[in-house]
Parts: sequence; structure tokens; C-alpha cells
Amino acid sequence: MASVFNKGLYVSVFGESYSNAIGVVLDNFPAGIKLNVETIKKDMQFRAPLKGYVGASKRKETDEFEILSGIFNGHSTGSPICAVIYNKSLNSSHYNKIKNLIRPSHADYTAKVRYNNFNDFRGGGHLSGRLTAPLVFAGSICKQALKTKKIEIFSHIFSVGKIKDYEFNSLNFNAKELRNIKNKPIAVLNDEIIKEILNEIEDAKKEGDSIGGIVEAGVFGLAAGIGSPIFDGLENFIASIMFSIPAVKGLEFGKGFKFAKMKGSFANDEFYIKNGKIKTKTNNNGGILGGISNGMPIILKVVFKPTPTIFKEQNTVNLKFKRNEKILCSGFHDVCIATRGVFVVEAALNVAILSSLIFQGEF
Amino acid sequence: MASVFNKGLYVSVFGESYSNAIGVVLDNFPAGIKLNVETIKKDMQFRAPLKGYVGASKRKETDEFEILSGIFNGHSTGSPICAVIYNKSLNSSHYNKIKNLIRPSHADYTAKVRYNNFNDFRGGGHLSGRLTAPLVFAGSICKQALKTKKIEIFSHIFSVGKIKDYEFNSLNFNAKELRNIKNKPIAVLNDEIIKEILNEIEDAKKEGDSIGGIVEAGVFGLAAGIGSPIFDGLENFIASIMFSIPAVKGLEFGKGFKFAKMKGSFANDEFYIKNGKIKTKTNNNGGILGGISNGMPIILKVVFKPTPTIFKEQNTVNLKFKRNEKILCSGFHDVCIATRGVFVVEAALNVAILSSLIFQGEF
Amino acid sequence: MASVFNKGLYVSVFGESYSNAIGVVLDNFPAGIKLNVETIKKDMQFRAPLKGYVGASKRKETDEFEILSGIFNGHSTGSPICAVIYNKSLNSSHYNKIKNLIRPSHADYTAKVRYNNFNDFRGGGHLSGRLTAPLVFAGSICKQALKTKKIEIFSHIFSVGKIKDYEFNSLNFNAKELRNIKNKPIAVLNDEIIKEILNEIEDAKKEGDSIGGIVEAGVFGLAAGIGSPIFDGLENFIASIMFSIPAVKGLEFGKGFKFAKMKGSFANDEFYIKNGKIKTKTNNNGGILGGISNGMPIILKVVFKPTPTIFKEQNTVNLKFKRNEKILCSGFHDVCIATRGVFVVEAALNVAILSSLIFQGEF
Amino acid sequence: MASVFNKGLYVSVFGESYSNAIGVVLDNFPAGIKLNVETIKKDMQFRAPLKGYVGASKRKETDEFEILSGIFNGHSTGSPICAVIYNKSLNSSHYNKIKNLIRPSHADYTAKVRYNNFNDFRGGGHLSGRLTAPLVFAGSICKQALKTKKIEIFSHIFSVGKIKDYEFNSLNFNAKELRNIKNKPIAVLNDEIIKEILNEIEDAKKEGDSIGGIVEAGVFGLAAGIGSPIFDGLENFIASIMFSIPAVKGLEFGKGFKFAKMKGSFANDEFYIKNGKIKTKTNNNGGILGGISNGMPIILKVVFKPTPTIFKEQNTVNLKFKRNEKILCSGFHDVCIATRGVFVVEAALNVAILSSLIFQGEF
Repeated sequence: MASVFNKGLYVSVFGESYSNAIGVVLDNFPAGIKLNVETIKKDMQFRAPLKGYVGASKRKETDEFEILSGIFNGHSTGSPICAVIYNKSLNSSHYNKIKNLIRPSHADYTAKVRYNNFNDFRGGGHLSGRLTAPLVFAGSICKQALKTKKIEIFSHIFSVGKIKDYEFNSLNFNAKELRNIKNKPIAVLNDEIIKEILNEIEDAKKEGDSIGGIVEAGVFGLAAGIGSPIFDGLENFIASIMFSIPAVKGLEFGKGFKFAKMKGSFANDEFYIKNGKIKTKTNNNGGILGGISNGMPIILKVVFKPTPTIFKEQNTVNLKFKRNEKILCSGFHDVCIATRGVFVVEAALNVAILSSLIFQGEF
Repeated sequence: MASVFNKGLYVSVFGESYSNAIGVVLDNFPAGIKLNVETIKKDMQFRAPLKGYVGASKRKETDEFEILSGIFNGHSTGSPICAVIYNKSLNSSHYNKIKNLIRPSHADYTAKVRYNNFNDFRGGGHLSGRLTAPLVFAGSICKQALKTKKIEIFSHIFSVGKIKDYEFNSLNFNAKELRNIKNKPIAVLNDEIIKEILNEIEDAKKEGDSIGGIVEAGVFGLAAGIGSPIFDGLENFIASIMFSIPAVKGLEFGKGFKFAKMKGSFANDEFYIKNGKIKTKTNNNGGILGGISNGMPIILKVVFKPTPTIFKEQNTVNLKFKRNEKILCSGFHDVCIATRGVFVVEAALNVAILSSLIFQGEF
Repeated sequence: MASVFNKGLYVSVFGESYSNAIGVVLDNFPAGIKLNVETIKKDMQFRAPLKGYVGASKRKETDEFEILSGIFNGHSTGSPICAVIYNKSLNSSHYNKIKNLIRPSHADYTAKVRYNNFNDFRGGGHLSGRLTAPLVFAGSICKQALKTKKIEIFSHIFSVGKIKDYEFNSLNFNAKELRNIKNKPIAVLNDEIIKEILNEIEDAKKEGDSIGGIVEAGVFGLAAGIGSPIFDGLENFIASIMFSIPAVKGLEFGKGFKFAKMKGSFANDEFYIKNGKIKTKTNNNGGILGGISNGMPIILKVVFKPTPTIFKEQNTVNLKFKRNEKILCSGFHDVCIATRGVFVVEAALNVAILSSLIFQGEF
Repeated sequence: MASVFNKGLYVSVFGESYSNAIGVVLDNFPAGIKLNVETIKKDMQFRAPLKGYVGASKRKETDEFEILSGIFNGHSTGSPICAVIYNKSLNSSHYNKIKNLIRPSHADYTAKVRYNNFNDFRGGGHLSGRLTAPLVFAGSICKQALKTKKIEIFSHIFSVGKIKDYEFNSLNFNAKELRNIKNKPIAVLNDEIIKEILNEIEDAKKEGDSIGGIVEAGVFGLAAGIGSPIFDGLENFIASIMFSIPAVKGLEFGKGFKFAKMKGSFANDEFYIKNGKIKTKTNNNGGILGGISNGMPIILKVVFKPTPTIFKEQNTVNLKFKRNEKILCSGFHDVCIATRGVFVVEAALNVAILSSLIFQGEF
């Protein structure tokens, strides 16, 4: 199980950081969806390491994919779509050096215990952030299906360190603005904070350190009535995919943890009807009541912990010699994983929403 | 699907607030677990409406359950365990009066859309908080299985409004203290804040209002190596159950949203080995790395929004006449749902952890 | 997970032969289906032990059921439907006597091994044929949903011992004839063999013996295009439910095992079009090609082994003393289980077909 | 759905007859199993079209596979194993000619209806028998895991047309004989019938016709206690995989349909104990009682219908012109699909048995 999401859609992610390839199978994807390969390429490139900006990983990941099945004459066939991304001949020898030194806050230790030392430890193996590439592929495919129902999903960096962006609920953004977010150097709503965030990242980088961040995402155009109570609510669907993204440690909907200090009279979203359409005046619940969409935008936030890899000496354990040692990591890594994670969150949300719709027979 | 959790364990929750009964089926529960019915009764009573304290719902829910199958000679048989809780002849006529007035922040509206008006709307029907009673039954059963492996799960109110409790990570609590939490008037670690919380609730109550809160929960005694990467991580398992609890709008592990402002050098949990046992100095990751337990306590927080039912006039829509109207709710409701939710979180976590273990063939 | 069918519909069967009750939860059943309780009662009575005829079990099973949830104002609510059938205070003491003597061809031995001796062994426990009663309940509910799409399912005894009935494909039966099958003393198409079958059963009974039989079932009115290739074909769906019926040891579609001796030129079903409707001249494939319905009736046969319980001395093993012994069974048992199994097959097929439709978003 | 088997193991099959590649992902396969690639190659070649014998398809399928992930240093890593088999540049133009002529007893018509004409129709697309190659890969991997528990699975042609082989139960075959079956020109137990079967096939071929057959398979070395009652019995597991094989139209366990004419006193398998080991004198139930293994060999038979493609003119429908027409198929096809299907059945059974064991936490 592990790497299969299976509600409505089946999304089976495979591969290890240094195996021949990584990839994904999407099963139960509806037949007859027009699929633009250029769109997928573009979506994949957003997630790929950014060359331009300070603090980005410099490992040259080639995320060129090959579609093996499931698309015929430019449309989905209804049969499984499989895409693979080949791992080009990378040198993994530097991982051998630190093979027995478990990196703090990484999954080196837990994977070894889980798989009885048979896991492919190189570069994190199957637990590498690289495995988000297939998820982005899946998200791009799902996005194109959702578009046929006029459902659009956007995400942006809400915060890096102490710098905060606007919230989707705070202002009225038009579709054009939202579609442009991902083209910015940092994917934010408020252009004025881009420089501040770059500085924040630069500062962390200078110290050989990393920094955390929060991503906000929204689903626009989803009709009311999607999702089910108890275990198959929209929140459950979304959560079970969001926590598949490495470094994600929290998820909240609407006001989320702010609800703790709120009174009901302020928190409740009052309904009103206008032109026969029912809406709520506020959207504190992030568009979900009882696990079911209420027709307002689905709004959620996801927190990314700081990249575990830092260029400072840390204490750890040498598993071979069973003794305490120091570790100093090297290699290429993002200073703030949220700046790429923002695209993974968007992809994951596309998968979650399409899955919910298929699950309910709405596709 | 809706109301079936199905990973490792199958937990099928059924019933509506005013149907003949509510209940639960647990399938794939291991055979041969000694099950104490008195323990279950006690666990059920914690969740049941508290008579003693200010701000608690006064609806007399009789949560007496009957076990229909799966237990023989005091042990689980390995076949499905079914328990039912009968809904005693309650008068639901007051729900008819407001049948067409959708209550703000409740699921009245979304359930109607989802089920095309065929849902049992009385008292929230299948989406009622009452459906957490079967989950608490399931949790108590799972708890008794986990106990055989010396795994114990505790939860406490971390905050109500602005009043905050200690965190599990902040001090060293012994097992006796932890086991005593639920016997307190408010389930907190720090006795000194009980009165403050009761005041906070009393204040909200006087205004006919409600208030939110946060619950913290911890899993103690879980070995390293439980959980899987990507979609079947411990976080995914736990999330997919936590979001089944009505009013839960956020979930975080370890430092959670605090990670956003942290640097890696502070956030990372350094490993050390002592007497052959590997631990981490801090537990910012809440015991989970790459979806897999690392042997430290699993720590998480869950936020409950303020109870949607308040005794203040609110704006809403009359679905029958399709017009804007006012609604004034009456009846019995908790002022702060978190004070009972704390027991549901504990139950849900027991289910999640046992499921993870069964899923992995460890039971 | 043993007792949960979970594709499209979730059907969770619980209970043991001598537990407080047996029952079933149906989850993901569509909302708004008008459900007639009298129809369910009638369907349940067909399966219940027949008093009238020779060779039927005389154990008085009271199959009165109580619906606990999921039906409101005569329609399904969309939330889980739970029904229970109480086991009236039956004396199970005679099972204690033979507790350590495993009955040949029964599941006494395998259940003990499977559940490490913790299974409720009385009357077969969870593996009793009595557990088909909840399945019949589920089937009756599903039947009423299928009826709204003009899909009807029938079954009949195809053979008992050497006596054979017609096949659905052999003649053109009208709906009225088909609906009347189950009212006959033995559910056959050809009335003339009823007496022969009763004789066959009588003969076996006189010798304290039992006899096998074959049931044929058909789905009429199912549109083309239902089912999926490979693992989720209609045949897979149907098979995974049919083999849940105790004593079923084989399943074939259309010509089934007769295909082995056939040439393609005789076996192939040629297509033709008439009035714009595509049909096949023959229906050797039983209405399924590549796992997908082709619009012709779905035709299948299921074989029931002879009832394992016979009133002749047999060799077996005493598990307690670990020695070879003789066993002589007593109690009430059907001589030919197929004569009641025919109604279970029909129920199971109703569940399978509705599941397939829901799975595919057609409900 | 569709093409994912997901109980214990996840087996996701993808690809179309003329897509870039076909392949399979195995998820939840245990870590640390030593995997011999040469063994897989050999197993794949058995299924590949036989060059040597009369009546075999001459389409040159190159079933060379590439393993993309999940194997490291010769052992399974515990992460998903993905293998792909590239479809070499085959000319599919001849399929365009008959694109609108649905072939009798093929899935051309049903696939078109199911996927709204978007399916890749060339060579049967995803519904092609070619998709059994990934299943054979999966089977070979599973076989190597089962071997570590001394469980071995064999299959042989039981009949082609009127020619019949021995049954596993009929004689005592030693492991060496059983392992040698697949090396024979026709995989039978009784060498003397090889020529007869070849003649039977030759005869059909001369007429441009095809012929059906039956495969028998057996699981040797499986302990008692594997499988679960009702929906997750061994029979259900096996059935849900067997019916994924194209052309399979029936499945029976042990005496199967012969039970219909048997009396209980002959059909029942009496138990005995010898040297502390419990066995049955006969194995009419094919090693399964109540869905659970009883320690005897699991024995089953599967019927393959005659290859639908024949070189005789047949009646059919032209979908484009919506009129009746004649079709004359050409191309390369097996005369008796069972002669290759025998290896697919064996592979499918390996998958089913390993899945059952994993599902139950026995791996």
C-alpha cells in the first residue's frame, strides 16, 4: 500500500531517487478528457529546481517524462495513464559516505527500521522529495479534467519565516491574477513581499540554514454537495493526500487554528440568498461543512517544515558503529522547501478534488 | 462510502441522530484480545454530555450500548464486532419547526444538497456529533488491543479561547498523571487553568455564544518503523480519521504551524544513542519522519471550531421560500465542543494507531 | 477484512450463529430510493428454512429484522443502512458436546486455526450459513434500487443430483413467469421436474445423506458498457460475492466449462443490428465480453456442494485428544442446500450489479 | 479501479496493445526478498508466443522488460516495484481497416460503449491478451517470495477439446515432475496426450477455427488457516484475479461442478491425524473450507473459451454505418489460448496467494 491513493482515482507512485526511473499510474481517470502535453510539461517545470533564484537546489533534475499509456489521439482512453521520469545517471557515491549517519529530521532512520535495511537509501530513496514529481504529473492531468467543469485550483506562498502574504479570503482576486501567481519569482499574491521573502531565504542560506513556510491553496468553482460525512469528507480526502508531501506537518481549513480563540457568533458563516444562489457572507469554514462543499471556495493552508538538510554540523548517530557522531551535510538542497512545495500542494489538491468527484459519480 | 474507514481495520459507523439506533462494526480486529466491557462503558461516559459543569449540553443522551457480535467468552473472536446504541424516544418535533432554515456553519445545507433532500435532517441526522459515540466505542476496543503491546494514548485540552495548557513535550509527565487527565472537570495537564477555562466557557455561555478550542494528543510506547511513505504515512492515517470528527478544522504534528517561522538548525531533531537505544533530543517532528514513527511519542494537535449552535439571532436562508430570514436556535448544546471532543480525539487516535499496526501485519 | 465487500457499495456483514444478533451495514447506497419493507420481509422468508417440503432444515430461524438507520419517510437517506436480525435464545449446548470433533467438510477446523481457537464455534459461528440472511437483506434493498432502472434479476435451481432444469437461454421466458419462479415448491423453470427433485432429495434424506445442486441466475435489462477490464470486470465483481456464499465451489458464465470442448466458430456470439439496437444471435458469453456487459442478459451458474452435515458416521479428528475418532452429527439441516441457496445467489447478484453501477458512477 | 488489484498487494496493470509500453506496479511487496531477474525472464518467455508448435500466434511479441524501481542490490526494497515492457514499433494499420467492424466474442464493442469511443481500439487496446504479460511479471516476483515459505504453485493443461489430462489429485506427483511441466511442448502431466492435443489444435487450425481448454492449478505447501470467511475467502481472492484473465469464463475448486451430482457421504473430506499432523483423506474441497485453507493442496480449474479470432467469415455489425456486415479476421492468433493461458493462471495464482498472506499479516 504505501504509495497508492485509492479513492475514486487510483494514483500509484513508484520509484526511488536513484532507481532507473520514477513515475505514476493513474487508474479510473475518465475517458475522453483532452490532454495537453505542453501544459503538463509547464506544470512539471514549476516544481523542478529553480535555477534563477537564491536558495534553490542546484541538483539538475531532469523531469522530462514519457507517457507510456492511456492517452490516444490527444484524449484519455479511460485505461490507466502511466508516465515515467527517468533518473539520469547521477552520481550517488556521496551518499555512500554518509550511509550510516542518519540525517536529523530526515527519514533515513525510520526507512531503515521500516524496511529492515533493504530500502534504497541513496538520496532518500522512495522517500525523497523527488517523488513529488510524479504527483505533479498526476495533478496536471487532473487539472485538465477539472477544467472541463470550470473548477480551478490555485496556491501561493502564504508565509516564509515572518513574512506574510495576503489570504485568498482577504481580497477579491480575479482569475487572471490567480493564474499568474506561479509565474512570479516567488508564488505570492502580494508582489511587494517577493523581495522580503528572497531576503529571508538569503539570510538563512548565508548561515547554512533553512527556513519553513506556509502554503495557502484554494479550489474555485466547485459546486455544493461534494464530499461525504465522517471518513470520506472533503477534508479527509484532501488531508490524506496533503500529508503525502514530504515536510508537510500541518493542515488547516478556513480559519483553522484561529478558530480556537473565536466565538461562534464571529466564526459562523451566515447564509444569504441572492438571485437564487445561496452563499455565505464570510468563508471561515473554508467552503466545507460536515465534510461536504457548500459552494464557496475551498480554502486551506499547509505548513512546510524547514528543509532538514542544513550545512551546519549536527549531532547524530552512526548506525554501524552504534555511537554518537557529528554529521555535516553537503550537496544541493532548497533553503525553503515551501517555495517549490507550493506547486506540489496545488497538484495534490487537483488530485484530491477530482478523486472526490469521481468517487461520487460526478465524472 | 462515506462512513467506512478501511485501512487495516474496517470501521463502519452507522445511524442518525433520531434513527432507531446508531452503532459501529469493527472488522479485521484481531482475535483473542481480552475485552473489558466496563472499560468501554467508562470511556463512553467520558464523551457523554457532562452533567456537572457549566456550559455542557443538557440533552440526556443515553449512550448505553449493546454488543451484538464478535466477543465470546470475554475475548474478541476475530469476526466483526458490532455494537449498537439505541436512540431513546426523543422528541424531534422542534427540528421540524426549523426544518427549512439552514443553521449557519452546520451541515444542514450541505447534507440537503448532497443527498438531494432525502437525508434525515432531524438533529443533524448522520452528520450529528452524536455519531462520535460509536467512534468512542471503537476507540475503547482498539485501546485494549494496543495495551497488550504497551502502547498508550492520551489527550488533553490544550486551549480554550485564550487559556493555554502545557504541552506533552514541555514537561515530563508520568503515566499515572496522564491516566488521570480525563477524570478532571476539564481534561488538562495543568490543574491551575481549570477554573480559568470554566470561566471562559461561562462567559461565552452568558452571551448565548460558544467558543473554540485545541486538543493535544500523544501516542506513547509506539516502536519505530510504523507507517509508510507517501499515501499511507502515519500522518495520513491519523488525518483521515481526525477530520471525521465534526468541528475539527485543523491538524498539526509536533511543532506544526510553528515550523513556518523556524530555521532548520532549531527545528531539526538531533539523534543520539544511549544504552543502545536511539532517540531524539527534541521531538519537534512529533515522532514521525517520512510518515514513519521514529520511536518518540507521536504528538499532534487538533482544533475544534466554536459550536455552531449559538443562542443569538443569525441571518440565514429559508430553503422552502428561498428567501433570507433570521434564525434563533434553541435546545441543548455544548458551549465548547472541544471539552468533549478531547475524548473523541483520543478514541480516533486509538483507531488510527491500531489500524496502522494491523495494516503493516504487526498485529 | 473478512466480511466487508467494498466496491461501489460497502456491505459489511456481522454476527455469529449464536451471538446476540447478526446483521449488515450497507454504505454508499444511493439516497432517495423508495424502499418497501414488506418486499424485504418476503425476500427474507424465501431464504428462511422451508417448513413445507421434505428435506428442509427444521431449525426455527426467526429472520425478523429491525432496520436501525438509513431509511427515513420510506426512502433511503444516503447514509448507511443497518439492519439486525436477533438470534433468539437458542440452545447451543449440543455444540459443546462435539466442540472438539471437527465436522468433515465444515469450517470448524479451519476457523479454529485461523482465529487461534478464539472463534465462536457454536453452530459455525461467523462461518454459519445463517450469515446469508443479512446478505439476502442487502440483496432485497439493492433489488429495489435496480428496479428503478428496470433491471431485474432471477435465479432458479438448474440441477439437483441428476435432475436438470431448462436454462434461461434455452427458451424465451416472460417476466411474469420469471417473477413466479420463487413461489414454487422448488424454484425451477420447468414445473415438471419439481416432483423429481423432491424425490431426489427424499432419497438422500432417507439414507441420512445430502446432495449437491446447481443454481442458474440471470440479470435482465442491464445496459451495455457496465464493468471494467482486468480486475474490475463484471465477472470479478460477481465472483467476489458469489464465493462468499458457503458451499459454493464453482462459478461459470454463459457456456462456462462447456467452452472447453467448443470450437470458436460455434462458441462466438455473432452480432447483428435491428431497429438500431445491437444484439448477439447467441449468448454463449453470458452477456459479458472483456469484463463489460454487452447488453444481453448476464447468465451464470453456481454449484453448491452437498450439505456437509449428514447423519452417517464419519471419520474425523478429536482436536483435544489429538486422536482419530468417529462423529455422528445430529440437529436440523437441509438435505440440499442449493434449494435455499438459490435465493442467496439472487441476492448476491443484486448486490454485485448495483455495486458495479455505483462503482461506475451510474447511480 | 479497473486495473488495480488491491488486497494485501496492490497490483496495478497498465498499457495498451499498441501504446508505448505496458507494465505493472507492485506495491506493498515485502522488503528483503531476493529476486532473480533470470527467473522472471524465463517465466515471461513461457507466456510469450511459442514459436515451435503448430497453432501458436506468430506475432513477434518482444516481452523484454525493464525494472524501473523497487529492487536494490538484488533484493526488494519494500517500495513499489515497477516494470515496463515496451511495445516495439508494430504496424497497427490493419486494425484501422476493421476499426468499425466489431469482432464477435471480442471486447471491441463493449470497450467502445464503456469508454465512449475514446478507448485505444488497436489490437484490443487495454483489453488485449497482451496485458497478461505484466501479470506474469507480477506472478514471477510473487513466486520468489512464496518460495521463501516453501509454497509452490503449478499449473497444467487439463483438457483441450475432448482430450483430458490427469488431475493433481489423481496421482502423487513429486516436486521434480511438477517443476518440469512447463518445459513440455504442451504443459500436461501425462506426456502421452501431448501429441493428441497437438492434433486437436492442428485440426482446428486447418479449418481456420479455434478451440477451448481447461487449466488446472495447485498450490502446494500452504499452511492451514489462510483466508477469511465471507468476502475475503481464498476462493474470493483467487476468483477476483482469475477472472481478470481474458477468455476465462469459469472457475471451480476441488470437485467443482461435479459436486452437483454427489452425495455428502461421498463428497465430504474426512479428517485424520497422523504424526500430529491433520489431513483429509480426500481433497474434494480443493484445500479450502469456509474460505480458509485446511493445509491440503489448493486445487482449482479454470476454463478458457476458444480464441474468438477465427479465420472464417462471421456476421457482425459495422458501427459506423450501423448495418449488418461480414467480417473475416486476419493476423496472428493462438488457436487454443489455454496453451499459453496455463502460465498466466499460474502467475495469477502466485499473486493471489501472496496477497492473501500479506493481507493477513503473514508476510
